[in-house]
Amino acid sequence: MSALSQLYEGKAKIIYTTEDPEVLIAHFKDDATAFNAQKRGTIQGKGQMNCTISSRLFEQLEAQGIQTHYLEQLNGNDMRVKAVKIIPLEVVIRNIAAGSLCQQTGIPLGQILPKPLVEFHYKNDALGDPLLTRDRTLLLELATPEQLDQIQQVALEVNQHLQAFFTRCGITLVDFKLEFGLDSAQTLLLADEISPDTCRLWNAAETDPNLRVMDKDRFRRDLGNVEAGYQQVLERILNQASGRN
Amino acid sequence: MSALSQLYEGKAKIIYTTEDPEVLIAHFKDDATAFNAQKRGTIQGKGQMNCTISSRLFEQLEAQGIQTHYLEQLNGNDMRVKAVKIIPLEVVIRNIAAGSLCQQTGIPLGQILPKPLVEFHYKNDALGDPLLTRDRTLLLELATPEQLDQIQQVALEVNQHLQAFFTRCGITLVDFKLEFGLDSAQTLLLADEISPDTCRLWNAAETDPNLRVMDKDRFRRDLGNVEAGYQQVLERILNQASGRN
Ligand SMILES: Nc1ncnc2c1ncn2[C@@H]1O[C@H](COP(=O)(O)OP(=O)(O)O)[C@@H](O)[C@H]1O
Ligand SMILES: Nc1ncnc2c1ncn2[C@@H]1O[C@H](COP(=O)(O)OP(=O)(O)O)[C@@H](O)[C@H]1O
Ligand SMILES: [Mg+2]
Ligand SMILES: [Mg+2]
Repeated sequence: MSALSQLYEGKAKIIYTTEDPEVLIAHFKDDATAFNAQKRGTIQGKGQMNCTISSRLFEQLEAQGIQTHYLEQLNGNDMRVKAVKIIPLEVVIRNIAAGSLCQQTGIPLGQILPKPLVEFHYKNDALGDPLLTRDRTLLLELATPEQLDQIQQVALEVNQHLQAFFTRCGITLVDFKLEFGLDSAQTLLLADEISPDTCRLWNAAETDPNLRVMDKDRFRRDLGNVEAGYQQVLERILNQASGRN
Repeated sequence: MSALSQLYEGKAKIIYTTEDPEVLIAHFKDDATAFNAQKRGTIQGKGQMNCTISSRLFEQLEAQGIQTHYLEQLNGNDMRVKAVKIIPLEVVIRNIAAGSLCQQTGIPLGQILPKPLVEFHYKNDALGDPLLTRDRTLLLELATPEQLDQIQQVALEVNQHLQAFFTRCGITLVDFKLEFGLDSAQTLLLADEISPDTCRLWNAAETDPNLRVMDKDRFRRDLGNVEAGYQQVLERILNQASGRN
């Protein structure tokens, strides 16, 4: 089954239709953007690395009973996925304070949270992906109360599985962003990607606040060695996923 | 009972101690600030107008069984209040979409909300009074879950009473900000002020989006006739409060 026509192009992926209306192909690009696309660049090999990382992580989650859009990795940059209607929420799960949480609350970077925090942002580039309260999410009719509760619960389960897996990789899962969608049967599926573009990942063996960073913050904060960070994540995940190590 | 020494000076008021440690005097200033004090100015007579407006509104609310910090208006600019420990939350109640709600959600200005929205902002000038989710409020330990529930309930009651009162004044209560505090017996009291500085108030008889504005938005948005807007609010409230009209 090959790509037919381009459905839409986002900042990190191009989505293609296939002969099967229930199946799409997500093509992962090397393009990198940050700060709502005000900063742009290229990370060499990112498309292939993120497609592979995402594929292995979705396989791990499927094995744990999480329902995802993942079908298979086709080749370097392409992933076959179930077509969903994306719920326009960026679901952020935080284990350790970083990024906008620190900026907006004054909680110091690196503070371990007493329990994981699940937060909803409006997936809307024109508005700058603003933080939502539950009442605002319902007011905007972005999801039903039941869907929000289900998303919250699945997000926490995904966090538990990913945290355990990344710990085995020697990586601290600081925070990450998920997207969910509904398939044609209205089943809620974890969609989009899970990659160093969408996670904050720290080398657990490293305490230096710059050296430990293995994710898109290397690009955001001009820390250098961006490709090497992604490559390290990929290698450790491949080692773990294949049962080697 | 007269003012002893200055306890603290804020953007709109100076708080003085009195001989009674449970009683403070709030002195209302003519100073006006907006956009987290980036815009500064003076509104002639604002101190006296806001002190009087606030006093009459607190009296209305007390008559409806709402527990407030209000004791009495002393003279033009001074209000005797019960000393409280302020809970560092700006509690915003919205009946009609305006301001940051529109900017952050894309809901059009003036849209009537299906039900009043109660929102919490972190009262923290250094952080720019950011919007809080319930989980962030609890994480920051700004209030207990029980206190948040109580504040939410009292805020909705205050909204009902104020909406009814302002309707009788020919004024539409678009949104407003409340502050709450705990007295020495740990009783939750409505504190601070309720004035055109802290409410969006529209002349109900006016549809023009600039002409209808009777509140601090005239200052924020350089609409002119700022004093006249406040004066109109004051006169209508005095007429209603005294049973005239
Ligand atoms: N299974 C899926 N079905 C339909 N759309 C999807 C699926 N998975 C992800 N998408 C969407 O594909 C689009 C392209 O991805 P991306 O380039 O990351 O976009 P963005 O610029 O919004 O981050 C996004 O809108 C994303 O939500
Ligand atoms: N009853 C009270 N007891 C103690 N502090 C109060 C009381 N009512 C209001 N305050 C506080 O008085 C301070 C001065 O008011 P204001 O000038 O409006 O301050 P701000 O610049 O924070 O808006 C504020 O911190 C407010 O929370
Ligand atoms: Mg994306
Ligand atoms: Mg104030």
